[in-house]
Amino acid sequence: MIGAGYFDSHQLSKEILEVQKLTQAPFAVNLFTPNDIKYDKKQIEQMNTKLKPYREALGLSTPKNSTVKEKEKFEDAIEVIESLKVPIIAFTFGIPNQNIIKRLHNAGKILIGTATSVEEAVENENAGMDIVVAQGYEAGGHRGSFTTINGEFPLVGTLSLVPQIVDNVSIPVIAAGGIMDGRGLVASLALGAGAAQLGTAYLTTNESGADDKIKNEIIESSETDTILTNVFSGKLARGIMNEFVHNMNLYSKQVPPYPLQNQLTTQIRKSALEKGYTEWTHIWSGQSTRLADTVDAAQLTKNIINDAVKIINNK
Amino acid sequence: MIGAGYFDSHQLSKEILEVQKLTQAPFAVNLFTPNDIKYDKKQIEQMNTKLKPYREALGLSTPKNSTVKEKEKFEDAIEVIESLKVPIIAFTFGIPNQNIIKRLHNAGKILIGTATSVEEAVENENAGMDIVVAQGYEAGGHRGSFTTINGEFPLVGTLSLVPQIVDNVSIPVIAAGGIMDGRGLVASLALGAGAAQLGTAYLTTNESGADDKIKNEIIESSETDTILTNVFSGKLARGIMNEFVHNMNLYSKQVPPYPLQNQLTTQIRKSALEKGYTEWTHIWSGQSTRLADTVDAAQLTKNIINDAVKIINNK
Repeated sequence: MIGAGYFDSHQLSKEILEVQKLTQAPFAVNLFTPNDIKYDKKQIEQMNTKLKPYREALGLSTPKNSTVKEKEKFEDAIEVIESLKVPIIAFTFGIPNQNIIKRLHNAGKILIGTATSVEEAVENENAGMDIVVAQGYEAGGHRGSFTTINGEFPLVGTLSLVPQIVDNVSIPVIAAGGIMDGRGLVASLALGAGAAQLGTAYLTTNESGADDKIKNEIIESSETDTILTNVFSGKLARGIMNEFVHNMNLYSKQVPPYPLQNQLTTQIRKSALEKGYTEWTHIWSGQSTRLADTVDAAQLTKNIINDAVKIINNK
Repeated sequence: MIGAGYFDSHQLSKEILEVQKLTQAPFAVNLFTPNDIKYDKKQIEQMNTKLKPYREALGLSTPKNSTVKEKEKFEDAIEVIESLKVPIIAFTFGIPNQNIIKRLHNAGKILIGTATSVEEAVENENAGMDIVVAQGYEAGGHRGSFTTINGEFPLVGTLSLVPQIVDNVSIPVIAAGGIMDGRGLVASLALGAGAAQLGTAYLTTNESGADDKIKNEIIESSETDTILTNVFSGKLARGIMNEFVHNMNLYSKQVPPYPLQNQLTTQIRKSALEKGYTEWTHIWSGQSTRLADTVDAAQLTKNIINDAVKIINNK
């Protein structure tokens, strides 16, 4: 799975071609479904005031007002995926419109949606998604939520969410959120999922592109060190608590929506990390930090399968 | 398991004798470990002002300042348990002191502690508990938390919490939180637990003492309808969102600690429920509401075991 939410079409092509050079096996690209957002310029100005101390400390200037081009970026990505014949496309942050779904289905693509509640899973099935990811509260980074209850995204734990989604859709379900090893995989299958999706587990592998300092922060954290916050990107995401989150959470209700806040904090996070200061950058992680390890990705996959087979055979 | 946290010694004796009349099998009593609390009288007065509209609407007067006698109640319960020869005692809200633990161990009792983080589980093991319940974020009602991180109780999902606790203690682990059926039981075993503990699943059974209106509210709810709140009891607990929770959450930081807030709201909740108004009473429930059903308790147990065996054999 290529996580392509932040890529422009050039980066996306490059990644796809690289994967195709390495394997004949099918793989997926994950895209952020663009959403309509509401904000006013004052919100941006106010946020820039709050971010000023960080920028000054890092020697950064206030970025120019960038225009939001999520829809164009999404359209470009769809074109790249079609022309390079990627067989599977996964969507997060919502369901693409029927034109896109029909176009991709006509091209023979398998489409995966993401749900953090039963309602979202049913909407994915009704829209024609072939598979749905049941993504629980434990998951690291941004979850795929696109509905709110009393103004908040769903916060349902994986063990609770998976069987309730399985009971209410007829398409296959992939469990996600807090799964790190063979135990989590077998638990997912027992709950009725057909497969499991692991994020944080592969983030700390040797092949992962994440900075070593980020990998270390995750590995040295405990299960109570993560928090849900919108201060990095404008969308709720789970990461390790640090100084930026602690300080900026005071303004969490004034944060401009994704992707605006994401753009406003990008330089701060990048610059802080380059200077080795992880307190001012995002450290996305699920809640199962104690199960994270630095291993080769292939070895991790083997371990997961071997452990799962052992658990199943011991029963 | 007799949930005896709210019982005086008379009620507890009665329940134990009733269970002993019905079965020769071993059973447990669950007790609230008493904690030292800090509060001032002004806090109580202010809360009484906030609660006044509810009391007036229900024709209730402000209750007299009740003295906190949790420690005496706990001591009395221990004596009843010893004299009536209950074999297993489970503790929540903390670990009892070493005098109690040694006294109960010398009497041959099996002691179960409750943990909502790895740290709490390790503390339980170090204190001499024989078994520990790993209670995840999805759990209904009060969880057993007794440590805080940045002023908040641990909020770790069951699927993430169980294997991390299993890896860090050598005593047996019981999984709890969101488990309702054979799927949840098999998932718990796959995660490394030796057993599973179910609360909400039995709350809606025909034999349960819960009011039918409460059972119906749970069964008709969806997985996103529960919320964590301290407004009923002064301690964080999960229940179905309703008017009282919504309105009183505005004052959640001013709520007096358990058991004070519990005493202040008891008459309101009782009276509202008697009048059929569930919007002003607690409806404790875990997140797996869609899996709740009205069945006989014995049938539920059979279903869970049969389904678990089927899942294990199909693999």
